[in-house]
Amino acid sequence: MEKKSNERDEVAINNLRMLSVEMVQRANSGHPGLPLGAAPMAWALWSRHLRLNAHDPKWFDRDRFVLSAGHGSALLYSLLHLSGFDITIDDLKHFRQFGSKTPGHPEYGLVPGVEATTGPLGQGLGMAVGMALAEAHLAEKFNKNTKVIDHHTYVLASDGDLMEGVSHEAASFAGNQKLEKLIVLYDSNDISLDGPTSRSFKTNVRQRFESYGWATFLVMDGNDVEAIDQAIIAAKQTDKPALIEVKTTIGFGTPDAGTNRVHGNPLGENNLAKLRENLDWTADEFTVLPEVEDYAQQTIIQRGRDAEKKWNKKILELQNNNPALLKKLKAAMEEQAAPDVTDGIAKYDNGAEASRDTSHKVIQNIAARMDEFVGGSADLASSNKTTIENSSLMSAQDRSGRNIAFGVREFAQGTMLNGMALHGGMRVFGGTFLVFSDYMRGAIRLAALQKLPVTYVFTHDSIAVGEDGPTHQPVEQLMSLRSIPNVVVLRPADPNETIAAWKQAVTALDHPTALVLTRQKLPVLPGSNKLASNGVACGGYVISTQRGLRPAGILIATGSEVHLAVKVQQKLAQLGQDVSVVSMPSMELFEKQSTKYQEQVLPSDVRRRVAIEMGTTLGWQKFVGLDGSVIGIDHFGASGAADEVLAANNFTVERIVQVYQQTHSRNEVRLSVIG
Amino acid sequence: MEKKSNERDEVAINNLRMLSVEMVQRANSGHPGLPLGAAPMAWALWSRHLRLNAHDPKWFDRDRFVLSAGHGSALLYSLLHLSGFDITIDDLKHFRQFGSKTPGHPEYGLVPGVEATTGPLGQGLGMAVGMALAEAHLAEKFNKNTKVIDHHTYVLASDGDLMEGVSHEAASFAGNQKLEKLIVLYDSNDISLDGPTSRSFKTNVRQRFESYGWATFLVMDGNDVEAIDQAIIAAKQTDKPALIEVKTTIGFGTPDAGTNRVHGNPLGENNLAKLRENLDWTADEFTVLPEVEDYAQQTIIQRGRDAEKKWNKKILELQNNNPALLKKLKAAMEEQAAPDVTDGIAKYDNGAEASRDTSHKVIQNIAARMDEFVGGSADLASSNKTTIENSSLMSAQDRSGRNIAFGVREFAQGTMLNGMALHGGMRVFGGTFLVFSDYMRGAIRLAALQKLPVTYVFTHDSIAVGEDGPTHQPVEQLMSLRSIPNVVVLRPADPNETIAAWKQAVTALDHPTALVLTRQKLPVLPGSNKLASNGVACGGYVISTQRGLRPAGILIATGSEVHLAVKVQQKLAQLGQDVSVVSMPSMELFEKQSTKYQEQVLPSDVRRRVAIEMGTTLGWQKFVGLDGSVIGIDHFGASGAADEVLAANNFTVERIVQVYQQTHSRNEVRLSVIG
Repeated sequence: MEKKSNERDEVAINNLRMLSVEMVQRANSGHPGLPLGAAPMAWALWSRHLRLNAHDPKWFDRDRFVLSAGHGSALLYSLLHLSGFDITIDDLKHFRQFGSKTPGHPEYGLVPGVEATTGPLGQGLGMAVGMALAEAHLAEKFNKNTKVIDHHTYVLASDGDLMEGVSHEAASFAGNQKLEKLIVLYDSNDISLDGPTSRSFKTNVRQRFESYGWATFLVMDGNDVEAIDQAIIAAKQTDKPALIEVKTTIGFGTPDAGTNRVHGNPLGENNLAKLRENLDWTADEFTVLPEVEDYAQQTIIQRGRDAEKKWNKKILELQNNNPALLKKLKAAMEEQAAPDVTDGIAKYDNGAEASRDTSHKVIQNIAARMDEFVGGSADLASSNKTTIENSSLMSAQDRSGRNIAFGVREFAQGTMLNGMALHGGMRVFGGTFLVFSDYMRGAIRLAALQKLPVTYVFTHDSIAVGEDGPTHQPVEQLMSLRSIPNVVVLRPADPNETIAAWKQAVTALDHPTALVLTRQKLPVLPGSNKLASNGVACGGYVISTQRGLRPAGILIATGSEVHLAVKVQQKLAQLGQDVSVVSMPSMELFEKQSTKYQEQVLPSDVRRRVAIEMGTTLGWQKFVGLDGSVIGIDHFGASGAADEVLAANNFTVERIVQVYQQTHSRNEVRLSVIG
Repeated sequence: MEKKSNERDEVAINNLRMLSVEMVQRANSGHPGLPLGAAPMAWALWSRHLRLNAHDPKWFDRDRFVLSAGHGSALLYSLLHLSGFDITIDDLKHFRQFGSKTPGHPEYGLVPGVEATTGPLGQGLGMAVGMALAEAHLAEKFNKNTKVIDHHTYVLASDGDLMEGVSHEAASFAGNQKLEKLIVLYDSNDISLDGPTSRSFKTNVRQRFESYGWATFLVMDGNDVEAIDQAIIAAKQTDKPALIEVKTTIGFGTPDAGTNRVHGNPLGENNLAKLRENLDWTADEFTVLPEVEDYAQQTIIQRGRDAEKKWNKKILELQNNNPALLKKLKAAMEEQAAPDVTDGIAKYDNGAEASRDTSHKVIQNIAARMDEFVGGSADLASSNKTTIENSSLMSAQDRSGRNIAFGVREFAQGTMLNGMALHGGMRVFGGTFLVFSDYMRGAIRLAALQKLPVTYVFTHDSIAVGEDGPTHQPVEQLMSLRSIPNVVVLRPADPNETIAAWKQAVTALDHPTALVLTRQKLPVLPGSNKLASNGVACGGYVISTQRGLRPAGILIATGSEVHLAVKVQQKLAQLGQDVSVVSMPSMELFEKQSTKYQEQVLPSDVRRRVAIEMGTTLGWQKFVGLDGSVIGIDHFGASGAADEVLAANNFTVERIVQVYQQTHSRNEVRLSVIG
């Protein structure tokens, strides 16, 4: 073994290595390769730079560390253990076990010190860019005389992270914004799961990041702690985001070092024994050597405590100099606060407005009352109507801007929203066309999994976009979004429902919200000025009752189709059929209501039901059952004037009346066919 | 106006410009900005280089042209009209009208000459990389003495395309593969929908592409046809893929030139008049000047004819020299052929095997019998079991390889699969973990929209992946894939169903197929050696009948859960309940069957139904209705041993028996609650 690090560092690094591979071995599952190769850079960062405090893990001005290569979780848990976080040796022994604090990939919320859920490659880097952006924005906002916001965001990323497209989007964005406090350690080991990266990836990564406007550094020997340390010091001094490429050997110290064999499988007893030999490691399994504990105490733990002490002094300073600003800062830091800042918005009594336009007005209202409210669009702000008119564009020159130009980068937008929400002090939203929610689906999933109250403004919500054709007409996106656990999807039917939908979004604490909005105008529904507020909160409600005591049938619709349903109801009334119309802006919220409430809206014994929505029919059977009908779209749309496209897809009063009339007897018909 | 082009070129270019903006104006919708700026580069390419033949638009050795910036469709339609393709002036006048040949964004299959459906940014470039890869592979395969495969793939891409992450993935892959016949014209106009690209995108694009191993060129004046021509000539001479950055002015010639105001809205009569003035254009609306028609005839049309004539001679040569090879080539070119190459695979009578392992065996069988069968994985070949063992890895050094290392690039993989399928001569598949199908969803949608018979091998299909935890455990992906129109999703339950599922995939002609496979072993289901072949083709079938004439209830399951259902059936039998078990590997195929068949499998009057699937419950109500139950997962999974994770999610015989027993009376219970 070469010895480029001092003795104490080397012992600590080997201790991290051994803990990590012992965890994987005991779990009989996991990834030993990355921890063995990347332990020195992680140690250099944690022992010499990172400022965090296990005794106050949510300390607001801590440095953020994101393990973008989430499969290296054993290394992160080992580091957290050494740093005094609430992960015991016993927790390490239960790595990857059901109910443990040490799951296969790092999960945000399970353990303090894990700043983001990672594993799906590329997204950790994207979230880190969001965190660094949050830091820059909040620093501009709060550092008047006293630097109360002043921390770095560090990332440990792998080859796989940098192959993913989202790494391009996020890094290009970060370069443009000159996020100088973002430092990426790139574990460059030339191996990915399937073998040498040269099979598919010979990109000159540093040149690539330079093209984005990043500063780049190279450390040729991944075991050289001094060189890594120097590179981090240099990276802190540039006025750009920095990438430090550290050449490492995957599975360092094992017989399979430098190959993909050591990437994702336990070493096995033999190779583990050889590793111990190669590292001169004689301690028992799951040992932290006392000298390593001391060293961590003197470095990571002490630095964190000192840093927070200093910060507390700054806060006292602020209290004296600018108590109003401190109050604002405290409000921003308070994550549980999600007041209903839509409560003052005037309801609509009549008229018509596209829900994207109503949303735009609501955004102005929220922005005026909630300083933390910040957002943007993936280059569709003028179509999504997401601009906060009273503020500027966030940029390297003006970090106070509350409008973010994410660029044509839907996926990175999603990850950056997650990063800002994780950082705290921000209440964020982002927009694109509903059809392109597909591009950012991976990030929506991680928002849901991490319980982040991010809001998506998805406009152009149906085939009614018309001329742009099937590539721009969403069909399956609506039901697909509903299928993601812990996402609340809201498709409001008129201006009043749109205001109520935003209320749901802005008061959410533990889940993302997708607002699905129209390009075309929607008239105000009769009665919605009274009913929408509570109705939307309940997910579904009777917007137009039947005339008699009980409906003969029920029409269920969302968004623009509610208007069609009301017209069908009128037509059916003329034909002697007495039906109710249910507006169901959110299936998820409706399902959270009591059985009693659900029965009031959809009485079980009324089986003649027709659901109407310009999207995939699959899923609506939940509410119409085997006997009902769904007017939906199970094919792609077409380019043409909206009314022609709609008519060709059965979205006319006549056609729906017909379907309703056929619905009654369908079951009998079907039975008679088989006889 | 500067005059860097000769007079004839300039007139032709202005004619293209005018046609395009007149189309947008008449449609009162569309994008005039790109055609005005990019007409010169398009003209330089089409009039001086592109080889295609309107009289034989599917000529196999034509150059491929992909308008990645699909919103510039008016320019493409104008070019196709000038080039003699089946697009009349009348078609141009019906731009963006319902039922026209000239939809808002180019749609593959609607008009010959449109090589790919584009509009969702970045994907055109990805598909072009796939096309160039197909060309390289087929050239290696068929150019023994005669160069029968020898064409270029050209792309016109915008700033938006290059901001998208998929452009990174695809370009990085292309650089690695040294796809020297891929030439990208980059319409660099510094403007995107929301404004100047500097708001979010200051990347040095040429430097970036150089980092990928591309050759790059710069043309400073986008109106300089000679310079563009020279750059294309130089690009053809490098042994790398080439990016030609052409600086243009969006909306050239209009008062709003160089701003986003001219990106996506009709010019309006005033600005159109000013444009005519600026371009000295006096002809009537929708005129093609006779001299321009002549010029196109002498250049584009003549070159195409000559090229195909030469090629026909080569084919004659091949017929003489190597008739066997010609026969093979013709087979590859024949797109309608999709023989059942799985027919000889031996059925399983007993034993157990993971469906990914059975799939691996089937892949070997198919590969042995179908030369065109080529595929790979997004760096998970060893987990997805997608390797064709009897072949090499496709690379710049060995283009005969039938295994493609796509890298950790799911989205680009999807777009490249589309590109290869569009090119023809290839039958392609690609793999990743089911959970990461999210990353490539945009490409799956375009495969479905373009009716491409691409196969996806999605393994690790449920929470049963265990230790890797919720980031790697799919939940909503299965139902989400089913919601995409024209995708057939198959989740086989055992080895015999897996063989039958591959048969569906490999014989498909007009839709993509998603195979959803397990990591864990699946026993052979009793009777499946007889039933699976036809049962899978029908989408759903009774795998285990009730004892009596009619079932008292029905258990419906897919994949690994079918085994659980059979065990539940046995347990229920002990309890005196006589139920049938339906295996439903594909909802889509089941729905294509006759009502009579569907009734045989799921008799309408048997309402006591329980669906069992380790995914989102939403959607299953289509088969169990309002009275049935669904055992599914509407939350995220957890890291732990598979059996513990399954038990925690109700996937045990005991729990399902309980749910079945409760299912019967649920409706009464619910009614009594409201009473």
